[in-house]
Amino acid sequence: MSSTLPIQDIDCDVAIIGAGLAGLRAAERLAAAGLSCRVLEARDRIGGRLLSQRLDCGATIDLGGQWVGSMHQRVLDTAKTHGLTLFPTYVEGDSVFLIDGQVRRRPGLFPELDASTQQDIDRGMEALDALRRTIDPQRPWAAEDARLLDGQTYASWLREHVPSKAARDALAYIALSVFSIEAHDLSLLHFLFYVSAAGGIDNLINTHGGAQELRFVEGAQQLPIRMAQALGERVICNAPVVSIEQHAGGVVVHARGLRLSARRAIVTLPPTLAGRLTYAPPLPGLRDQYTQRAAMGSVIKTMLVYDRPFWRDQGLSGLASSQELPISLTYDNSPADGSAGVLVGFLEADAGREWGQRDAAQRRDMVVDCMRRYFGEAVANYTQYVEQDWAEEPYTRGAYGGYLPPGAWTSYGRAVREPVGRLHWAGTETATEWSGYMEGALQSGERAAAEVVAALANG
Amino acid sequence: MSSTLPIQDIDCDVAIIGAGLAGLRAAERLAAAGLSCRVLEARDRIGGRLLSQRLDCGATIDLGGQWVGSMHQRVLDTAKTHGLTLFPTYVEGDSVFLIDGQVRRRPGLFPELDASTQQDIDRGMEALDALRRTIDPQRPWAAEDARLLDGQTYASWLREHVPSKAARDALAYIALSVFSIEAHDLSLLHFLFYVSAAGGIDNLINTHGGAQELRFVEGAQQLPIRMAQALGERVICNAPVVSIEQHAGGVVVHARGLRLSARRAIVTLPPTLAGRLTYAPPLPGLRDQYTQRAAMGSVIKTMLVYDRPFWRDQGLSGLASSQELPISLTYDNSPADGSAGVLVGFLEADAGREWGQRDAAQRRDMVVDCMRRYFGEAVANYTQYVEQDWAEEPYTRGAYGGYLPPGAWTSYGRAVREPVGRLHWAGTETATEWSGYMEGALQSGERAAAEVVAALANG
Repeated sequence: MSSTLPIQDIDCDVAIIGAGLAGLRAAERLAAAGLSCRVLEARDRIGGRLLSQRLDCGATIDLGGQWVGSMHQRVLDTAKTHGLTLFPTYVEGDSVFLIDGQVRRRPGLFPELDASTQQDIDRGMEALDALRRTIDPQRPWAAEDARLLDGQTYASWLREHVPSKAARDALAYIALSVFSIEAHDLSLLHFLFYVSAAGGIDNLINTHGGAQELRFVEGAQQLPIRMAQALGERVICNAPVVSIEQHAGGVVVHARGLRLSARRAIVTLPPTLAGRLTYAPPLPGLRDQYTQRAAMGSVIKTMLVYDRPFWRDQGLSGLASSQELPISLTYDNSPADGSAGVLVGFLEADAGREWGQRDAAQRRDMVVDCMRRYFGEAVANYTQYVEQDWAEEPYTRGAYGGYLPPGAWTSYGRAVREPVGRLHWAGTETATEWSGYMEGALQSGERAAAEVVAALANG
Repeated sequence: MSSTLPIQDIDCDVAIIGAGLAGLRAAERLAAAGLSCRVLEARDRIGGRLLSQRLDCGATIDLGGQWVGSMHQRVLDTAKTHGLTLFPTYVEGDSVFLIDGQVRRRPGLFPELDASTQQDIDRGMEALDALRRTIDPQRPWAAEDARLLDGQTYASWLREHVPSKAARDALAYIALSVFSIEAHDLSLLHFLFYVSAAGGIDNLINTHGGAQELRFVEGAQQLPIRMAQALGERVICNAPVVSIEQHAGGVVVHARGLRLSARRAIVTLPPTLAGRLTYAPPLPGLRDQYTQRAAMGSVIKTMLVYDRPFWRDQGLSGLASSQELPISLTYDNSPADGSAGVLVGFLEADAGREWGQRDAAQRRDMVVDCMRRYFGEAVANYTQYVEQDWAEEPYTRGAYGGYLPPGAWTSYGRAVREPVGRLHWAGTETATEWSGYMEGALQSGERAAAEVVAALANG
């Protein structure tokens, strides 16, 4: 509570709230258009849901978003601009699948299933793909059956359309691994929107050719850090925004220690956090009620660090999955140069919530135990354990992103991007291409900046 | 932004946030236990979602909650204590039902339907009643089929279990009229919790013997106003709370112009608004994520005022309903002494959202037009039009209350009432008896006060 400190006054054309990829990309575009701006960041660091950490051994890992697909052109171009290097996710050798308590090895992302289950899965995927083609990611609420699709959970759809439980479980697992929420949390229409914005389910779940294809050698957070460095004094950390006033001529953004006067503002926070700022005049009911519904998923990212990636010697890729263990998904997350071995394991949705409430030592022991079941006794020889619970982060409050429960797209969809006076909305949840991904964050920043440039050109 | 004004410092045993029925009842109980407290209210008025207004003609009407059931013992007792009088809702004569564009008259709450539709409705109601008996309102997440019940919307359940569309529509209308949300917004488990907390569907929807049986002669807001008067200087208006700090010995509540130090705090705001305060240390992820999901319904309450209740002359009760008009439900809302005639009409859920975005004159014309279809040409001779859109109220942001979408009860239910350190949670959304009603607000205040008294007795 800094009421005793002097308040710094700043004037510029555009105030941007949040120094993640969306806010930084918006700032780049505005600067390129000759407009002055400031990016206000609540934390003492850049990057939002991108967060890299140097391990004891010197290697860098990502505690937040880390994967990039080869079709994520904006990310790839920006990485190139800033001299960052990407390398392929390690997926050579067999994956490990634990089913009915039995460990099985097999190449690829999916376990071997009996023919009937596999057929149910394939048919389910085809039906979902046909449905997602009816959804325009710009206007999911305008789809022909929008109300019906939005009126049910993804779990309800699976129960109705996929005969076997094994196939339903496999398809429900997509919600877990892609959104880090349970299939019953999710509006079917939101699922279809998200798939449509990514161009298909395969794009979302694949490593090769999909969203998990590449990683940053330097850590993903270097991308926003270097963007921020290039923006220089335009980016201000440690400035949590409390309120935004609109008046006839512009906006005034009140942050800790700072009062920013501008002609327009872009808010890039996840919708649920954007809804927690104080607005004067108050936001319209429709926009406010949208933010009441766009909740975040829950995930704890855990990592075990080794001197070397020992599983590769056994012909294992480091990829493992099971619906029977709290760690439902693992990957080889070793640095590009192989200077250490790193296994990443995800505690997703209910597992994340449940284990987020246990004490840290219990949780670490459980992670080690799950990894032992997947990769054998050598797992015990880790040199470091690292974890990140995104639901506990006060300026994020969940991951991978905001999603919509049933009814929200059809009742509130218009409020997702529609400006409110001089306020514009960005952030990956507002994207229409790769919503929920780095690519979507960049797209949303470009779109919001274009809105502002157009508005200011008209006075 | 009052940073230039001096901050007043106050010390007491318990800080209470919100001067609605929950906060005021908690204050009464704490005072009775010999503890000092302050109730901080953001607005310049008492009463939260209870708001009465004097009409031009001198009569008082309610723009917020207004109905009381004869089983709402806490409300009735409190009304008696403060010398307030209740009178029966006017329901004599025929109700009006508009179906397929045709107006039909009939006594009671329900239109005449063909035998097969009626049978579907009756069977649906029986099935829902059997399900709700499996729900303990204290622990909905512990029900045997909790995950299945919570994994679907009420709309999905209706589609699966009620054969005819007419019967489904009739049962979906319960969500609209009871929650002011669409059937597809609502977790089936939340629906069943709510019904269970009220002791059955009949209790919720009935006038005679149900939740709409009685009204306050003096207006419902007089109840909290008189409670606040008796609490005297304990209640402080115009004090919006911004943040709550917890430390080893107590809490510090920062409000505009005020710093309140106390041993414990009770937050009575609807969950979504409680989630918007800043907490230091930050709240646990589970509690925070619960508040991300507990969204408010949408309703605009509209009233047309007449010299006298002209519809009574025609043998009409003033009750009308239709799923074909934006005004889906009306009641005779005239004052007890008949000194004016008042028709209340509700714009619920999607209708409330849609019409909340039109201009006021358009909306009034639409209301008059709907009322004309129900009650004839005399409707045009109104002397005053009054409306209240609760989604636009910055310190309420919706009505009738907070509800939970699929998945939330089973994943976050424990966080609804569980104290976080020295913070306790009240408000009608936390009630286990008549959640969502005045009765529930009072019950929640009593429960939270008891928690605090017990905690402080143990040091």
